[in-house]
Amino acid sequence: MAQQVPLDFLGDLRRTHSCGALRAANEGQRVVLMGWVYRRRDLGGVIFIHLRDREGVTQIVFRAECDGALHGKAEMLRSEYVIAVEGLVEARTAENINPNIPTGEVEIVAEKMWMLNTSETPPFPMEEHVDVNEDMRLKYRYVDLRRPHMQRNVMLRSKISLEVRNELSGQGFLEIETPFMTKSTPEGARDFLVPSRIQPGNFYALPQSPQIFKQLLMISGYDKYFQIVRCFRDEDLRADRQYEFTQIDLEMSFPQEEQIFQTIEPLLEKVCAVAGYTVKAPFPRMTYAEAMQGYGIDKPDLRLPRFWPVEDLFPADAGLTREGLPLVAIHIPSTGALSRKERDELKDYGRERGLTVYDDPKRLERDFPGVVEKVRERTGAGENDLLLLAGWRDEPKGQRPEETVYQACGQLRLYAGQKYNDRHKLLDPTDFRFLWVLDFPMFEWNDEDERWVAAHHPFTSPKDEDLGKLTTDPARCRARSYDIVLNGVELGSGSIRIHRQDIQSQVFSAVGFSLEEAQARFGYLLDALTYGAPPHGGIALGLDRLVMILAGESSIREVIPFPKTAKGTDLMSEAPAPASERQLRELGIQLRRPQS
Amino acid sequence: MAQQVPLDFLGDLRRTHSCGALRAANEGQRVVLMGWVYRRRDLGGVIFIHLRDREGVTQIVFRAECDGALHGKAEMLRSEYVIAVEGLVEARTAENINPNIPTGEVEIVAEKMWMLNTSETPPFPMEEHVDVNEDMRLKYRYVDLRRPHMQRNVMLRSKISLEVRNELSGQGFLEIETPFMTKSTPEGARDFLVPSRIQPGNFYALPQSPQIFKQLLMISGYDKYFQIVRCFRDEDLRADRQYEFTQIDLEMSFPQEEQIFQTIEPLLEKVCAVAGYTVKAPFPRMTYAEAMQGYGIDKPDLRLPRFWPVEDLFPADAGLTREGLPLVAIHIPSTGALSRKERDELKDYGRERGLTVYDDPKRLERDFPGVVEKVRERTGAGENDLLLLAGWRDEPKGQRPEETVYQACGQLRLYAGQKYNDRHKLLDPTDFRFLWVLDFPMFEWNDEDERWVAAHHPFTSPKDEDLGKLTTDPARCRARSYDIVLNGVELGSGSIRIHRQDIQSQVFSAVGFSLEEAQARFGYLLDALTYGAPPHGGIALGLDRLVMILAGESSIREVIPFPKTAKGTDLMSEAPAPASERQLRELGIQLRRPQS
Repeated sequence: MAQQVPLDFLGDLRRTHSCGALRAANEGQRVVLMGWVYRRRDLGGVIFIHLRDREGVTQIVFRAECDGALHGKAEMLRSEYVIAVEGLVEARTAENINPNIPTGEVEIVAEKMWMLNTSETPPFPMEEHVDVNEDMRLKYRYVDLRRPHMQRNVMLRSKISLEVRNELSGQGFLEIETPFMTKSTPEGARDFLVPSRIQPGNFYALPQSPQIFKQLLMISGYDKYFQIVRCFRDEDLRADRQYEFTQIDLEMSFPQEEQIFQTIEPLLEKVCAVAGYTVKAPFPRMTYAEAMQGYGIDKPDLRLPRFWPVEDLFPADAGLTREGLPLVAIHIPSTGALSRKERDELKDYGRERGLTVYDDPKRLERDFPGVVEKVRERTGAGENDLLLLAGWRDEPKGQRPEETVYQACGQLRLYAGQKYNDRHKLLDPTDFRFLWVLDFPMFEWNDEDERWVAAHHPFTSPKDEDLGKLTTDPARCRARSYDIVLNGVELGSGSIRIHRQDIQSQVFSAVGFSLEEAQARFGYLLDALTYGAPPHGGIALGLDRLVMILAGESSIREVIPFPKTAKGTDLMSEAPAPASERQLRELGIQLRRPQS
Repeated sequence: MAQQVPLDFLGDLRRTHSCGALRAANEGQRVVLMGWVYRRRDLGGVIFIHLRDREGVTQIVFRAECDGALHGKAEMLRSEYVIAVEGLVEARTAENINPNIPTGEVEIVAEKMWMLNTSETPPFPMEEHVDVNEDMRLKYRYVDLRRPHMQRNVMLRSKISLEVRNELSGQGFLEIETPFMTKSTPEGARDFLVPSRIQPGNFYALPQSPQIFKQLLMISGYDKYFQIVRCFRDEDLRADRQYEFTQIDLEMSFPQEEQIFQTIEPLLEKVCAVAGYTVKAPFPRMTYAEAMQGYGIDKPDLRLPRFWPVEDLFPADAGLTREGLPLVAIHIPSTGALSRKERDELKDYGRERGLTVYDDPKRLERDFPGVVEKVRERTGAGENDLLLLAGWRDEPKGQRPEETVYQACGQLRLYAGQKYNDRHKLLDPTDFRFLWVLDFPMFEWNDEDERWVAAHHPFTSPKDEDLGKLTTDPARCRARSYDIVLNGVELGSGSIRIHRQDIQSQVFSAVGFSLEEAQARFGYLLDALTYGAPPHGGIALGLDRLVMILAGESSIREVIPFPKTAKGTDLMSEAPAPASERQLRELGIQLRRPQS
């Protein structure tokens, strides 16, 4: 229960400084600060307040000898009360200087104080490193957002967005807004629908991305488009996914892949600089095929060394892996010797994924003299490093069995790397290793529907030299698509698009759309391609993920001011909520009865 | 039907210049341009192409003596084909210089040409001043967006948005994103609803504005927030309204009205400069009461002079207006003498709104000698100006009958001003007259519901000195709200908010919410106000309207790339559209049967 405290009007009072501004050079000045009571100490009748705002903290002193009314008012102050203070800046004596805060050389001797608002006791402490139940944090998000790490994250995000806009504008990109009430295109993720009131029975969809609109803008001749834009996907939520997320979305005309890279690399250099980190372009590049063969994944984390196929170093009848399938050497640096238990865990982990794991180089050396040295040569693994070999002795699995083996090895590599990261900090979160992955497959086989589906999206151009394979050999048709990867996270994805209607129709047909289906879903794009569409391509980067990584966080909820829970609930406002019967009637819809 | 034209791959070819870049100084350079065929002329075997991109137009020449294959290819070119051209920059001879285009001193002598795409004949001409049916324009928006005025508008909008962001960031504002999937608050306009799939029977609402979120951000201590943000209202559409529109939304802590003005005025100065216009702050200010008494409207167009009450200049028994109601002198400069028919039209227009209009100064002078000179003195109306007097002889009407008279006079003033603007250009669209209107009434009486409703919104603070009138005299309670008005258009609206829970509860109660209703709708805001809410206030400006006015357009559809029709249809993609039965089932909703 809050105490009864008479409140003051702000009136014409103005701040002279923020709570982070004052230094020794301000000594003797009369100042007015406003903010929140952060900490309060009483020492022999003297009341010390740490007053906080977005910019920092300043110490306010209510001396014992100040006037009684003022002192009495100061005695009423509690955590998170909002006040304005007028007073004189005094230098602190040497022994009282607080080196932990930038304003620590001074304090304000209060002469007047305005009580602007009181506060209930906050539901959890404002301190930096206090763990609080996330549901509590989300319910009282307005309090949570005051905590230092959330303030840093929100401010960093704001700075990054501004930097992105200025850099892209400097490169000649125009920010152009696209609609949020669009047409549902039931391909890819599930759409959120918005019922129309004046066209009952009809629905808008919230866009999963501005993909088609940005292609139309290229067809309209805008040449370089970008937008920092909200996108919507009705998918189940997890740490790096929310119903609504923000993309840095861009598209350009007449580009090669190279020009996309030359746009994004300086952008990411500048964004990292905003966060206080230096990265240097050009970023390394590898094809999808190389990524699979070295990392077993399409988003390699370059902070760990690649793995190597080593079956050629062993006798053909070694039996460590099935004939025709790779034997892979995985190497994690500087782990030191692992215990038997630790090594068994790794073997179990591999076995669950179909791998046979050889964890004992001595035994391999005994069975195949001289080979371990050659493996160490190829992989660069030293005596103090973990060296695992992994083979596949079961039936081959999947459409490209060697890829199945690589993928399992990729998982084992990351598992071992992350596990021993705890002990050896191999995976430094401030070591930013950007990477381009290129030439993804054009199609993926969908077992359920028994058809090829677009690996990226159906507007992606095949490589010029693979055009002939579109319908004759879809499995070997490569796309002009590329991902930008950061430390094992896919940060963004893009492609050179199809700008010719004949090729677009072929691709729709390759993914199993009849002419009618293609026309019903994307007719306006197909039409637009016949009115002078230029070659074009683009990319979209996940802003939430980018800020998350640069802020050193492991969930995008830490960089989104008002996120939703895993069930899609806003715990603060209690959305979603039932609609009134009148609202539903106006929209021409009604709830289904639960099935009995 | 498009002709069969073999297309070329772009390959590694890169542009060296845009189509707006080349000047006489580039003579002799080898260049590569890419763009659209805008115009084509054939003169004695020489083919001239105007090649167009976003930056401009450059003339390409295919000489008769160039190689036959190239010339043959050039002969295939039609309007809106997409090509790349390599050639040499040549200076034009003096008589061939085209002063109408910035590249008019040069032309490119083509040596190679790549046919990148063909085009059907566009559905309407690309020319500047051709009137095209708006439905056609919207259906083929990707073609329409190529037309010069749309290119200018979209680029201007992009530049204005960037300027807004840099100016506000420079002033210490943080851009912070707020959610689009929020809680429905059935107050004000109708919400768009979004059904939840994993919480069937529950709905999100698209936000009408980020109002509550930005207040929460102030409570969280972010101090200065802004966002260029989409908002959604399910209202019937018209020229200056779309379902989705974009706001420049901002909020600050510890402000007086003055600080809001000092934020917005330099912002608008800079935005106008981006559009090529000079405006000077400070902008004039008037109270709502003054606006009504001088203009009969809360968004005065200052390009026309104010009107004046003149009942005091006449004898008490003059009978020109009902006792106690104003007699108003309306003055439109430099109209010259109007015909009898024109004057009768004005009288009819006034009569339909309840006014008795006196259009003949000579007759007034005869009936009331000497008075017309006094009226001319007060209004400043000269002999060549239109001078009308208007009174109200019927029963008084409305809660504040004098306001009813002023409003009718305000309509007559605008009608006369706009009508004779056609002849005399009084209303210069590039004469930007910004104006602040202050101190709006806190409440408006709603006849239908028989209750007071918030005139701005229920989070608006009453003026400190009117706090006591909240429940005792709501009709005379003024709000700390303000509008920014430009040439008769309300460009933005804002207020100092309520930051104290006790006052917020009183206001909710004054607008007829029970404690339970207030808690159910806005409980989280009421809660937040108890955790140290600082004084705060803000404003939101309509970006669409702002760009519309600065672009010299009269509909916001001219500055929105992909707008909807009056029925809310996207004619290009044909949204909204029916949803599949499966989508509806997943969302737990079904269509209502049409009522029989």
